[in-house]
Amino acid sequence: MTDPGVGVAAYGVDVGGTKTLGVAIGPDGAVLAERRVQTPSQAAATAAGGNGAGDSADAGRAHPGEAVADAVAAMLLELQRDVGAGGGHAVTTAAPVGIGIAGLVDSGGVLRFSPNLAAASGVAIGDLVSERIGEALAVTGVHAYNDANCTGLAELVLGAARGTRDGIVVTLGTGIGGALIVEGRVYVGVRGIAGEVGHMVIDPNGPPCTCGKRGCWERYASGGGLARLAREAALAGTLHESVRLAGGDPELVTGEHVTAAAADGDVEALRVMGELGWWVGLGLANLVAILDPERIVVGGGLGHAGEMLLEPARHALARLVVGARAREAVPVVKAALGVQGGAVGAALAARGEAPGAG
Amino acid sequence: MTDPGVGVAAYGVDVGGTKTLGVAIGPDGAVLAERRVQTPSQAAATAAGGNGAGDSADAGRAHPGEAVADAVAAMLLELQRDVGAGGGHAVTTAAPVGIGIAGLVDSGGVLRFSPNLAAASGVAIGDLVSERIGEALAVTGVHAYNDANCTGLAELVLGAARGTRDGIVVTLGTGIGGALIVEGRVYVGVRGIAGEVGHMVIDPNGPPCTCGKRGCWERYASGGGLARLAREAALAGTLHESVRLAGGDPELVTGEHVTAAAADGDVEALRVMGELGWWVGLGLANLVAILDPERIVVGGGLGHAGEMLLEPARHALARLVVGARAREAVPVVKAALGVQGGAVGAALAARGEAPGAG
Repeated sequence: MTDPGVGVAAYGVDVGGTKTLGVAIGPDGAVLAERRVQTPSQAAATAAGGNGAGDSADAGRAHPGEAVADAVAAMLLELQRDVGAGGGHAVTTAAPVGIGIAGLVDSGGVLRFSPNLAAASGVAIGDLVSERIGEALAVTGVHAYNDANCTGLAELVLGAARGTRDGIVVTLGTGIGGALIVEGRVYVGVRGIAGEVGHMVIDPNGPPCTCGKRGCWERYASGGGLARLAREAALAGTLHESVRLAGGDPELVTGEHVTAAAADGDVEALRVMGELGWWVGLGLANLVAILDPERIVVGGGLGHAGEMLLEPARHALARLVVGARAREAVPVVKAALGVQGGAVGAALAARGEAPGAG
Repeated sequence: MTDPGVGVAAYGVDVGGTKTLGVAIGPDGAVLAERRVQTPSQAAATAAGGNGAGDSADAGRAHPGEAVADAVAAMLLELQRDVGAGGGHAVTTAAPVGIGIAGLVDSGGVLRFSPNLAAASGVAIGDLVSERIGEALAVTGVHAYNDANCTGLAELVLGAARGTRDGIVVTLGTGIGGALIVEGRVYVGVRGIAGEVGHMVIDPNGPPCTCGKRGCWERYASGGGLARLAREAALAGTLHESVRLAGGDPELVTGEHVTAAAADGDVEALRVMGELGWWVGLGLANLVAILDPERIVVGGGLGHAGEMLLEPARHALARLVVGARAREAVPVVKAALGVQGGAVGAALAARGEAPGAG
């Protein structure tokens, strides 16, 4: 699909709560090389530095974003080697780098707030990476973006949202991310931080969220929400197959055990997936009422569970949206780009495909 | 402000759940004439007709939207007389008519669903009004829009949202309406029905809503929500001044008694307004997380309560929005156009100020 000799158009790195995935893409968006590592842990990041807010005065000292920046810079050099050596692609021209990261990343590329990467809040992650790369890699700039907006951009340009004028892309992973597509572009709001749909409160008396509030949608409809439903069901004496997969201890049942059992057709596990889908549909119904989209694309780790999640989600959406009987159903489809979506989108954003997300 | 002899640029009528307000506006948006009547009641509307869905086959028979259409047509003729006779304005040129109505009004002007005007659902209200006007009034077209989108347009063009690129206008009345401003225009979504922020569910186990769901934001943060809070507080033995205003019977305390007592500085009533403001702020926090707006404008009957509501709402928003400490406060301001906003916006929409809302 990609000729040897094709140049690298951009690098993209998706820094997740647990994994970091990087790609080099060609001019057509095709992935020329891919790398994955564990995201440096919060503990390691904190141990590595102080607690500075990342202003220029302490640029010389170690601070919490440095471990992440080290990992990203190392990954970029590996990607360059991959495409240059084994890949045989031209790497002589400078290419831009995009970094997708969970949390509020403003239009200046500063990570304002990240529930999953709290220690790195306040950091201009792009600048840190840029310093580390130095002359070792020819780049035209390093920019940071919200990870879900990157996934949204990738789905819009190359995936399941292609041709959509007004749509919503949600990523159901550890938490929930969102990207709003408005008039054919990813809409990022006035400060660049729109789309935080996971922190829409759907029950002010609900369980505490990592963001400090209670009852955010992502407490119910994410991997974390599935883990809670799974644990409750297992401790209530159901979910036998999932408990078996967990080695017999109901305390050890995770979302992965439930999705595995459900994929094998286990009725009890499918019931839990149905409950999860109801919560997904509830939040989507809120978003549809507010935004009246043409299409909804569901990605992220849980999104890959596919129909056993999307089918009950569609059902709930159709019942819960305002004026349900008077409006056409909004298609809810699975994301097309899988786990690479965030990294590919970060690369596309760096190439300038996201005018608002600069 | 308006010279005799200035022509009518457009007519606008806001059909609310209880009142219908119409205006004729000049080229600069100034109101040349205003009329108000009670909106024909559901009972009267149902008695007047059958239950047809308004398709062309039964256009000759009476059906539920006819009472509303009769009232709007009569009001338009009165407005024409007002500006022509007493007002001395030129009415020889044809002008467009805009009608704002609560509920889902699609891009074709059909009222898809209206919790407050259920009997009129499915009706092309503009066509019904058009038939009734006939040759009696020179109009270039009659179009229907969502009422809150009209208010949003009026605030954007002439009011408190002037110059806003990305913003939110919410109307807190019997229910809650919303208009989203995106890149300087009112965003109405793919089918023209975006902005139904009042039907965002904030507690799936909450009180039943007129839309058929449970725990919609408008159950908490509207006039209906205030009535509930007031009743609860009065029956719990507090709210003494409001109970006095209600003639001494706690069962008879309404939202109006509480706003009146609060306006006079009554501490118990102000506490209830504070609680109402908390619910307003909770919903606004959800909208800010999703949309990252530059400014929020609050209108509608309750919005006119002003600071005693907006102050606690700002407080709650600042605490409840995701990443609260890492983002600038979003200004929350009172709507500028008061009760005329919806009608003026309907007139502006008819003049073509709302490209998406046609």
